[in-house]
Amino acid sequence: MNTLGHIFRLTTFGESHGAAIGGIIDGCPSQLKIDFDFIGTELNRRKTAQAATTSQRRESDQIEWLSGMLEGVTLGTPIAFMVRNEDCKSEDYKALKDMYRPSHADFTYEQKYGLRDWRGGGRASARTTLPIVVAGAIAKQILKEKNIKVISEIAYMGDAEQAQKEGDTVGGVVECRIIGVPVGLGEPMFGKFSAELAKAMFSLPAVKGFEIGDGFALARMKGSEANDTFINNDGQITTLTNHSGGIQGGITNGNDIVFRVAFKPIPSLSMPQQTVNRAGEPCQITIEGRHDVCALPRALVLVEALAAIVTLDEMMLANANAQKF
Amino acid sequence: MNTLGHIFRLTTFGESHGAAIGGIIDGCPSQLKIDFDFIGTELNRRKTAQAATTSQRRESDQIEWLSGMLEGVTLGTPIAFMVRNEDCKSEDYKALKDMYRPSHADFTYEQKYGLRDWRGGGRASARTTLPIVVAGAIAKQILKEKNIKVISEIAYMGDAEQAQKEGDTVGGVVECRIIGVPVGLGEPMFGKFSAELAKAMFSLPAVKGFEIGDGFALARMKGSEANDTFINNDGQITTLTNHSGGIQGGITNGNDIVFRVAFKPIPSLSMPQQTVNRAGEPCQITIEGRHDVCALPRALVLVEALAAIVTLDEMMLANANAQKF
Amino acid sequence: MNTLGHIFRLTTFGESHGAAIGGIIDGCPSQLKIDFDFIGTELNRRKTAQAATTSQRRESDQIEWLSGMLEGVTLGTPIAFMVRNEDCKSEDYKALKDMYRPSHADFTYEQKYGLRDWRGGGRASARTTLPIVVAGAIAKQILKEKNIKVISEIAYMGDAEQAQKEGDTVGGVVECRIIGVPVGLGEPMFGKFSAELAKAMFSLPAVKGFEIGDGFALARMKGSEANDTFINNDGQITTLTNHSGGIQGGITNGNDIVFRVAFKPIPSLSMPQQTVNRAGEPCQITIEGRHDVCALPRALVLVEALAAIVTLDEMMLANANAQKF
Amino acid sequence: MNTLGHIFRLTTFGESHGAAIGGIIDGCPSQLKIDFDFIGTELNRRKTAQAATTSQRRESDQIEWLSGMLEGVTLGTPIAFMVRNEDCKSEDYKALKDMYRPSHADFTYEQKYGLRDWRGGGRASARTTLPIVVAGAIAKQILKEKNIKVISEIAYMGDAEQAQKEGDTVGGVVECRIIGVPVGLGEPMFGKFSAELAKAMFSLPAVKGFEIGDGFALARMKGSEANDTFINNDGQITTLTNHSGGIQGGITNGNDIVFRVAFKPIPSLSMPQQTVNRAGEPCQITIEGRHDVCALPRALVLVEALAAIVTLDEMMLANANAQKF
Repeated sequence: MNTLGHIFRLTTFGESHGAAIGGIIDGCPSQLKIDFDFIGTELNRRKTAQAATTSQRRESDQIEWLSGMLEGVTLGTPIAFMVRNEDCKSEDYKALKDMYRPSHADFTYEQKYGLRDWRGGGRASARTTLPIVVAGAIAKQILKEKNIKVISEIAYMGDAEQAQKEGDTVGGVVECRIIGVPVGLGEPMFGKFSAELAKAMFSLPAVKGFEIGDGFALARMKGSEANDTFINNDGQITTLTNHSGGIQGGITNGNDIVFRVAFKPIPSLSMPQQTVNRAGEPCQITIEGRHDVCALPRALVLVEALAAIVTLDEMMLANANAQKF
Repeated sequence: MNTLGHIFRLTTFGESHGAAIGGIIDGCPSQLKIDFDFIGTELNRRKTAQAATTSQRRESDQIEWLSGMLEGVTLGTPIAFMVRNEDCKSEDYKALKDMYRPSHADFTYEQKYGLRDWRGGGRASARTTLPIVVAGAIAKQILKEKNIKVISEIAYMGDAEQAQKEGDTVGGVVECRIIGVPVGLGEPMFGKFSAELAKAMFSLPAVKGFEIGDGFALARMKGSEANDTFINNDGQITTLTNHSGGIQGGITNGNDIVFRVAFKPIPSLSMPQQTVNRAGEPCQITIEGRHDVCALPRALVLVEALAAIVTLDEMMLANANAQKF
Repeated sequence: MNTLGHIFRLTTFGESHGAAIGGIIDGCPSQLKIDFDFIGTELNRRKTAQAATTSQRRESDQIEWLSGMLEGVTLGTPIAFMVRNEDCKSEDYKALKDMYRPSHADFTYEQKYGLRDWRGGGRASARTTLPIVVAGAIAKQILKEKNIKVISEIAYMGDAEQAQKEGDTVGGVVECRIIGVPVGLGEPMFGKFSAELAKAMFSLPAVKGFEIGDGFALARMKGSEANDTFINNDGQITTLTNHSGGIQGGITNGNDIVFRVAFKPIPSLSMPQQTVNRAGEPCQITIEGRHDVCALPRALVLVEALAAIVTLDEMMLANANAQKF
Repeated sequence: MNTLGHIFRLTTFGESHGAAIGGIIDGCPSQLKIDFDFIGTELNRRKTAQAATTSQRRESDQIEWLSGMLEGVTLGTPIAFMVRNEDCKSEDYKALKDMYRPSHADFTYEQKYGLRDWRGGGRASARTTLPIVVAGAIAKQILKEKNIKVISEIAYMGDAEQAQKEGDTVGGVVECRIIGVPVGLGEPMFGKFSAELAKAMFSLPAVKGFEIGDGFALARMKGSEANDTFINNDGQITTLTNHSGGIQGGITNGNDIVFRVAFKPIPSLSMPQQTVNRAGEPCQITIEGRHDVCALPRALVLVEALAAIVTLDEMMLANANAQKF
């Protein structure tokens, strides 16, 4: 279940302080000249973000490409890549080895698997999202050739500077927009474009809400306010408004796809917290080490990456059995 | 893409005014004595709902069971079932055949497939959710034996009585709770319990938002407010609060799963609306026939049904390769 | 696991003496005018076959189409269909209810599921292959528009007339040829065209062997005998021989796909056999009722149907992410 | 399509002369102490085989484990591993860059993808089967704890010593036996145990035939010869013979699973052959470099590995929704 997508498929691996993290992209078209600079740019967006709100782990993030290319051109075979985990300070985590960090995945992983990799959060670490950025960058490159763009911005973020002083963290909301999507993507019943997007976004750590178009606000509108009136715009049928966020009946209607993703505050606080240890005894936990105050700045590129992967995958699916077959 | 689930899998079929709607449930355990009365009760919840807000189509909804059982006991083979579409007033829709109803799927289906079944909304009709109730009722019955319950309520609904007078419609929010879920369901990366739930809920018509636990409100909290403190409750490790909605790192933690689903207002208004026809010419549309003022009353059982299907499917997946293998 | 295919997907249901058998075809292109006559013709090939070797069950096999079409034209939505089970003589089987018929699935089903539908062989009956013929006929119709044909013949069959006299049965080998398949279908590693064909053929009851091209005979050749020399045939690169059966490296090379399927003799003998009952006590079994002497005559259309489904599905997959994307 | 399995899933990557080959195993149970020595032993079986018949490429085959373990114990998360490609003599292949080697995948890959990795056979090289051995060894280790064994032998092999002198190659047949498989594995219709095995075996290069039990020989038997009589063996219901190869109705019956796989001769001959180049011009090709005379000695461990993967995966599937759920 570490695979996303139907045709353009990303399978990821890796723990935060294991040997490496990486992934396999299966189903990428052949004869694509990979834009490595763009991938680097996207990885930088994830890495540096805003100094004040993100942690200081030095991630050289040097990607090793293992397969699927000949002289930088895709072969149509699986593209495997990895990044070594360096600068791991596993000792920082040793003190936490037997305690459950509140609102982290320590407890649930240990219950599910009978053990957990306590070093740096293991598989549940935000570091494991790096392969998503790589696959997303490749998807974006392909989409760009089809004049499809994915952009995002922070719609809301708590007061990070203040929270940092208090040893606290903040959450926020990312708004993303997919521009230039053709009409007709998405499948009617259980493969709606909105459903695939929602699933993909909930793959990100700390995501607790997703809405498309006017989302939850639509629940408080009347039909006469919420409906998007069809108009003829210079020979092109489109709508006057976009309350629906570009999707009707689960299928894209040619408008921008607009959606928002809610992130809870990062649960790693530098202030002391109450918790229990593995024996169930109450104890106090203080989470040392490098931790972001807010996930948002890094999250933008992740949200876009997943949106690009889903969009490309849906285009491929539509290709497969389209009416024009 | 008309299939939901990995092990307990529902594949549905049917258009609103076609011959029948129905589905195939594959992966249901054998030796289960089906509680047909309960299925009937659940179907009634979908059918009648509140008189004031739901349409008047007479759905006898007599289920024909086609396979997968011997004397009411499941064989482990696919369970197929169907309901004939009767009392179809397709003529009501003939006037709409060449117009695109605003915020409906008419336009997107026609663009995707090159044609559409204009009779009663075709595959995009809310009627096509009936098979979900059937599969959900069977899933609930199995979950009940494991002491797992799924309940829901309307968290918010617009003023339906007033809207009906105005020829308008309203939306709302459903809150659902899954009680008694064992710790450890859900897969780490792309198969998180929350992601599977989100995807399932977006399969329902008119759904535009999904949040788990405190959802979007978490985006405005600090970490110190949002974190769920672990406590020892009489030998059982649990949490003091449930801001996370029962899921941490994508995996259930033993608390109630709590989530909310936002429904937009039903787009079929009895008041006249502006739109365009297939030729792109502006025209006025008045939607006659039977239509609900609000989807919420009928939606409760659907939300629960999907929640039950996802929970059962995740239990089966966890069984497959559990640590205890 | 009652689903075949990736894009063009058939899910089947039904027990031999249950209410009905049928299936759902998901992923069929829209705007196809279904050739119902051809489907009828194909069903007749399965039904009547050669009088001497097949059983006498009257299968009116009147298909009810439940969804996915408007006036005989596909909508792109799931096509559901069914055939009622009539003329069931379940009493014929009552005597066998507590005995395990040798080389039948009685014992394995009962062990797997804890119970079995003993009426007419239940889900394991050859009758359950009928939906394959329906889906195969639709696939053939689409392939025909692409100038692809699927034909088969009996390569070997035991002496049925003699066996019938003795209360015995015979097996045989079907050879099938897919003509006009484009170069480049099939996926390199675990989705080879040959692998998908093999899997599909082993879905048929009584199949015990599958070989492609010269198959097992290749194991006894030298490389210099087995290799297919490339030649230039009037500007077209092709091969002088077709020992490979049209597939190299798992991918079609433009030659005819040629394969053979081995069927064991039908295990239902009218002569008495030794076996045990459910209590494990030795007993003698005599299988009354209508049974074929040989599966081959009916099997031709089944082999072709599965070959057509696989070929169409692989074309769709190739469409999805082809180099030309 | 580079993924095998439903629950225990192997995704592989790599070209023969690319940076590395490897794979990701998803769905492996947690808390398994990996037997690295056994994996090494299995890799050696693939590597060295019989001196006379296999090529001389020095494959140090030092596996790097990238994720999924903590101190050699599985975490339940994806296990990624790779082997660097060293000692690549790509120059040997440069002369073949523009020619199509007969009965190789050069032509089909190039047609499918528009380009191919000509270095060492690229993705179609037998080297890419190495990850199968790794996953197979882990599967075998788990099966061993359940008292299930997989063994194989060469049932037939051409005269390799003679062929080598002539610059020729030979094929052969591998027979494999899975011992101790519980009753009830496999799914009725399209997921039969035999179908999954057949598909897996056809994933291996050069495989052209597969048969189970008495296979093609069954086609020439009468039912009275082919049927396996049930007997009571000391309170255990079993069969007197095993013509069916341990599978009836697609489901395991508790007997040994017995199957045979036919391999064509390796197509790389050291004698000169006629072929065409990319321009379609006739030319003569002489394949230099290191090549096996026969695939069989190396193939044994591969056949076993795939058999182990399929068996484990089917056990997990059976666990998922078993009657005892």
